[in-house]
Amino acid sequence: MAVNLPPLPELFPVAGIRLGTSRAQIRKKDRRDLVVIECAPGTQAAAIFTQNRFCAAPVTVAREHLGQAVPRALLINTGFANAGTGIEGMDDARHSCTALASSLGCASNEVLPFSTGVIGERLPVERLVAGLPGSLAALSESGWAEAAHGIMTTDTLPKGSARRVQIDGKTVTITGIAKGAGMICPNMATLLAFIATDAAAPSSILQQCLEAAANESFNRISVDGDTSTNDSCVLLATGKSGVELNVATGKTYKVFYAAVRDVLAELAQAIVRDAEGATKFITIDVVQGASQADCLEVAYTIAHSPLVKTAFFASDPNWGRILAAVGRARIPKLQVDRVSIHLDDVCIVRNGSRAPEYTEMRGQAVMARPEICVRVDLGGGTESARLWTCDLSHDYVTINAEYRT
Amino acid sequence: MAVNLPPLPELFPVAGIRLGTSRAQIRKKDRRDLVVIECAPGTQAAAIFTQNRFCAAPVTVAREHLGQAVPRALLINTGFANAGTGIEGMDDARHSCTALASSLGCASNEVLPFSTGVIGERLPVERLVAGLPGSLAALSESGWAEAAHGIMTTDTLPKGSARRVQIDGKTVTITGIAKGAGMICPNMATLLAFIATDAAAPSSILQQCLEAAANESFNRISVDGDTSTNDSCVLLATGKSGVELNVATGKTYKVFYAAVRDVLAELAQAIVRDAEGATKFITIDVVQGASQADCLEVAYTIAHSPLVKTAFFASDPNWGRILAAVGRARIPKLQVDRVSIHLDDVCIVRNGSRAPEYTEMRGQAVMARPEICVRVDLGGGTESARLWTCDLSHDYVTINAEYRT
Repeated sequence: MAVNLPPLPELFPVAGIRLGTSRAQIRKKDRRDLVVIECAPGTQAAAIFTQNRFCAAPVTVAREHLGQAVPRALLINTGFANAGTGIEGMDDARHSCTALASSLGCASNEVLPFSTGVIGERLPVERLVAGLPGSLAALSESGWAEAAHGIMTTDTLPKGSARRVQIDGKTVTITGIAKGAGMICPNMATLLAFIATDAAAPSSILQQCLEAAANESFNRISVDGDTSTNDSCVLLATGKSGVELNVATGKTYKVFYAAVRDVLAELAQAIVRDAEGATKFITIDVVQGASQADCLEVAYTIAHSPLVKTAFFASDPNWGRILAAVGRARIPKLQVDRVSIHLDDVCIVRNGSRAPEYTEMRGQAVMARPEICVRVDLGGGTESARLWTCDLSHDYVTINAEYRT
Repeated sequence: MAVNLPPLPELFPVAGIRLGTSRAQIRKKDRRDLVVIECAPGTQAAAIFTQNRFCAAPVTVAREHLGQAVPRALLINTGFANAGTGIEGMDDARHSCTALASSLGCASNEVLPFSTGVIGERLPVERLVAGLPGSLAALSESGWAEAAHGIMTTDTLPKGSARRVQIDGKTVTITGIAKGAGMICPNMATLLAFIATDAAAPSSILQQCLEAAANESFNRISVDGDTSTNDSCVLLATGKSGVELNVATGKTYKVFYAAVRDVLAELAQAIVRDAEGATKFITIDVVQGASQADCLEVAYTIAHSPLVKTAFFASDPNWGRILAAVGRARIPKLQVDRVSIHLDDVCIVRNGSRAPEYTEMRGQAVMARPEICVRVDLGGGTESARLWTCDLSHDYVTINAEYRT
């Protein structure tokens, strides 16, 4: 069902990062569900997490460990999210870290745990621990593609992206994987994403880079407006390329940042393309707003409207629903008679009402496309915002009605 | 598909109000689509309208006319919403009023227009005007049930409610009808509702009564979070019972207000029961919040979550999704370890995590019911809020994907 999502591109190895994936039968039989990402000593890390107040136990533990030590390994399981599981859930997350740490010969707080799957049920730690030797035996610098499979839940395709850029005459690699298809909304939108580079950078610069790039990618997508309890995104820097980034400004940083942002944007868009039940990939551009917040509010109101989303599913140019969504967006001031709306190159609304030259046939022609850009011009300022979303189909209902069966 | 929505109750005539319904072929053949509600001279009125900034032409005209004169008639058509239609739409609404006014021998601004249906297409005024004699010929004090049919769009059943109360030894009647099944969210949730009473009251008291009652009914329901461009709710008071309400306080007013509120609440709940594709009627109670705004924000976040709604559709006690929705609600402060959640009498979350005594079987037993109450205790205050919503089913997608075909 994924909308124009190509097969995994070549995921370049990142010196200092090894990945191992196994089938630990955590929730389902014979499915890659346990991933270990091992980092060379001295690897720096940055991370952003869900803003859901009911964050999962692994999110709490990962945050805590990141504050105490530099990570030596990431431990990721699918099947169960270990969220809403109380004190037992915290114990389960810590226990998992301890088990991996003892195999690797490092401290428990040098392991960051990540979980994704059903909320509210206990993590089967015994099965997870029993699966660790399999993942450790598989550790390899070329393990990215397997790991991209290993973190999937309702995703139909694995998601990865990689870039190589030249900095100071040397090659810097940035490679990332992500998973996520439902319960997708900003404020970490991604569920799980792991990106690594062989550049060297202190964690403060990595953090700045990751937050800025997420604001142009993961924090600009929505599938259903639901924010997960487990969203986590980690950027690791091994330093093995010999290229050092010491300031978050200047040309060198710009080249590096652009590459990181491109990787994140490709992953974020892949999540929308593979969204639960998606048949259309929709870009929403809101321009000439008084503020970025206004533009985002209008864009998200459109992106979250079930009526707009079902119209896209039906390829029905029912543009009145887009107009109605703009009209209910909670922005301080809307000059309705200055609003114009385009579907790709077709103007549907001008000065707040139906464009005179608009015909149903022209609207139909755009709506039949698998990728559509909705452009809303608020006519009242200089700010703009872009985000990506998808339609609402029968398959979304089916997938989410049957998720636990 | 409607959830436990009984047939229309007896809709008591209201002295001074006559209703006539006809088939004017406005958009579909052979369908009741044109309603005239005639009010006796001296009838007072109150009204509330959509807060969507792209309000429809009839909403603008009705607001304007209400400010200028006391209404002698309401003119309601289905098929086309006359929204997003610019200056032509305004002309069409005014023209319709003029046509009815000349038949009734009153001024144009004594007619209030209301439209519901497809947004963005012109109202076929000629067909509407041609249908007026039919509606006028049918005018009758017992025309409420026909009118309830005449204002339906995607509704599967007509909606009406009536009460008789004794005030000062006399009988006061309150009768109302409503339509609405999709694009339903507060800030006038109802699309269209028309309520009349034979009590006498100045419009200021009627307005106060209507706003308060709507806040306990129409403004407490959500089907899909989309606010219509055409929502309108009118309360008419003919004074024919001889009972006068001169202040909005005291015992007499209380009895009257309670009856009006009951009529509105019954209509509002009927809209949710008959919501597009609904298979479950859900009451959401949020209690012990710091403010009513907090309670409403939490309640609406649950009510608007596609993941919660599809879980209800599947009768799946996937309570983690409710927890996740509470966790992402935008309230200033949430003490997660004080939150408890019940599904009817079954406690699923206590102190922020799964209740120890909870079993899947107990959750399943509740979820199988057609009517379910979700009770969220925030454990941090004394305020509360209640609203009503429904599930998200395949039929919602089908109905909205095929709406214009």
